[in-house]
Amino acid sequence: MAFQKPTGTQDFLPGTVEIWQHVENKAREICRNFNYKEIRTPIFEQTELFERGVGETTDVVEKEMYTFVDKGKRSMTLRPEGTAGVVRSYVENKLYGDPDLTKLFYMGPMFRYERPQAGRYRQFHQFGVEALGGTDPSLDAEIIALGYEIMKGIGLSGVRVEINSVGNAESRAAYREKLLQFLTPMKETLCKDCQSRMERNPLRVLDCKVDQEKFADAPSILDSLDEECDTHFAKVRQHLDAMGIEYAVNTRLVRGLDYYTHTAFEYKAEGIGAIDTVGGGGRYNGLVSDIGGPDQPGIGFALGLERIVLLLESQKVDLNAQAPIDLYLIGLGEAAENMVTKLLYQLRKEGIVAEKDYQGRKMKAMMKSADRMQARFAAILGDDELEKGEVALKELATGEQRLVPITELAQAIRQA
Amino acid sequence: MAFQKPTGTQDFLPGTVEIWQHVENKAREICRNFNYKEIRTPIFEQTELFERGVGETTDVVEKEMYTFVDKGKRSMTLRPEGTAGVVRSYVENKLYGDPDLTKLFYMGPMFRYERPQAGRYRQFHQFGVEALGGTDPSLDAEIIALGYEIMKGIGLSGVRVEINSVGNAESRAAYREKLLQFLTPMKETLCKDCQSRMERNPLRVLDCKVDQEKFADAPSILDSLDEECDTHFAKVRQHLDAMGIEYAVNTRLVRGLDYYTHTAFEYKAEGIGAIDTVGGGGRYNGLVSDIGGPDQPGIGFALGLERIVLLLESQKVDLNAQAPIDLYLIGLGEAAENMVTKLLYQLRKEGIVAEKDYQGRKMKAMMKSADRMQARFAAILGDDELEKGEVALKELATGEQRLVPITELAQAIRQA
Repeated sequence: MAFQKPTGTQDFLPGTVEIWQHVENKAREICRNFNYKEIRTPIFEQTELFERGVGETTDVVEKEMYTFVDKGKRSMTLRPEGTAGVVRSYVENKLYGDPDLTKLFYMGPMFRYERPQAGRYRQFHQFGVEALGGTDPSLDAEIIALGYEIMKGIGLSGVRVEINSVGNAESRAAYREKLLQFLTPMKETLCKDCQSRMERNPLRVLDCKVDQEKFADAPSILDSLDEECDTHFAKVRQHLDAMGIEYAVNTRLVRGLDYYTHTAFEYKAEGIGAIDTVGGGGRYNGLVSDIGGPDQPGIGFALGLERIVLLLESQKVDLNAQAPIDLYLIGLGEAAENMVTKLLYQLRKEGIVAEKDYQGRKMKAMMKSADRMQARFAAILGDDELEKGEVALKELATGEQRLVPITELAQAIRQA
Repeated sequence: MAFQKPTGTQDFLPGTVEIWQHVENKAREICRNFNYKEIRTPIFEQTELFERGVGETTDVVEKEMYTFVDKGKRSMTLRPEGTAGVVRSYVENKLYGDPDLTKLFYMGPMFRYERPQAGRYRQFHQFGVEALGGTDPSLDAEIIALGYEIMKGIGLSGVRVEINSVGNAESRAAYREKLLQFLTPMKETLCKDCQSRMERNPLRVLDCKVDQEKFADAPSILDSLDEECDTHFAKVRQHLDAMGIEYAVNTRLVRGLDYYTHTAFEYKAEGIGAIDTVGGGGRYNGLVSDIGGPDQPGIGFALGLERIVLLLESQKVDLNAQAPIDLYLIGLGEAAENMVTKLLYQLRKEGIVAEKDYQGRKMKAMMKSADRMQARFAAILGDDELEKGEVALKELATGEQRLVPITELAQAIRQA
């Protein structure tokens, strides 16, 4: 019997994993410039954290969670998103006691039991950012800029930013009324999901992919904002303008989660057809207290890394995934065996990427192997060379070959 | 209600996470020199994979797995170790079709439901390496050297290597008989676990922490090796000698898992008292076919990253965890607000680690914040400076201050 990976999961193999490394390294580097620091929270948390932190009426919590009972009879859930765990950690570790803002990023696997489809996985990966402790609109703009920079930094083109304000609880209640007045007459014509959302959270009806065109004349939430929300949103746009970041205001952008307040935003990019949202986020001023912490504001976003990797591939961004090696070391005859082992170890310790044969292959097969690995050099060590303390160093691109003292091999490779 | 992380899990916060980043970066760098490439397999796999790949009679499988039934009624298990998933992936993706060896590394979270104790967690993290497709003893030595280099490379001192050979199936069967003859007379004096292990897998009795001193006169497995095993083990030592790596032969080293053949080894280090094993591994020539693949040999090791981080801390290795920022940018007055936003964004895009205040604080509080972040410079932008297109740049270590044109700020910071 042969085993297979679970449905909806992936193996990331050499040749592909380098794209992921590139994305992660770039994201880390840009976070460093923006002074965001990494946090790592557990892969699973108490189930109730997500019920409270993501929202009990969301699809994620209702249908998609990997929930299990552990051997201590506690209900645990593989994290379906990153924010709840980070906010839990912020509260539990009292990071709010720091006089400065808490600016964090995370990356790693998330889990949702969804129907597998192109670009959508049960184990998927997100990069995300959370800034906790500040309400300043310049922070909203900074967060939006950070995600934008990361996507540009990893080499994506055609990234667009859409923003909206979903206001505070009061302005949302006012908008809810107006929206229901608009939706009620067409209720029977809407999809099942929308009808059910109308009762629980009418704003999320606007998110519906099926009924989108019916909402062309829906009232705009921006018309329901009170003065505080209006000012905040104007300031966010002012700071985005100061940075020269182009954005579009999309009044139907509400995001799938219940906890957002004020700024909501999404990143879109070209290249994977209909699915063009690669990430998004927003401000969540009530979430920290919702999960038992002090009344501290927050804002963040998450990027779907599977989609970003798909985009990089479809945009044919050249990442030079298979890095060539420096040296393929060939020993001929038993006498050379120990010297090959010794030399290889020394070279590697000095930072030279070096390889040899482990399969008792003949010279010709070893040279082929060196070619497959795109080795810059092959070094041949036979009885003759060994006796003189030399190796034959061959540059594979030119075919040029010369004798080099063993003691100068590292230097010869580095200087080439 | 406040939420807590699940028992036996950890949050890695800024200030600690940098040690992890350091370990991971060094391990990646050294793997690159040794030409090992990263593989990432899913966090959970079919339960049967671990029953087959780790061994049904092991403590891990019998008592410690996080097993759950998914929404599709399949039994899944959070990976308790890394090798089974990597070998499953090697088989499923037919990596054995490559004419060269498959040399892989992985790192990430693993899960075992154990009683939490110092340095032992239910979610723990391993770095591991697997080389598949080669039986050459130089490969065993290379793998041992790689783990040794990584631990030295991350800054650990006092790392020791212990090696042994557990032979092949035939020599192990012969040894099993001899060992049982030795153990049977003392059976009643042994701990419960040992008595149970005697029946199922007597070699693992030698692993027992409780009864260790009773086995001083136990027969050595090396005396039961056949010629092939003996030669292999001698060759491994020869290659280790060629590299100048010091090691001790420990004939009682058998490792906890059932699948090892030939070479078994452990890394020990000083600094965390009784628990001095930080990792180990061995050759597993039967595992690939055990889980349904072709008859391909393998060898690998895993390092426990929690233990390594503990050791780094107890050995007081200086990692400069909190990296200082380059610049704290201070805007005075409303007119400066947009310029601060614009400038900050430009500087960060140019790779300068820059920060500002988001909490409407006064000058003095901002300067304190700059100190906490160990900023090299503070740049002050008031109405006067703004009018002249200048900033006041202050070097915080010296207190030296000068006016710099806004357009030359990045250059001034980089040149300092």
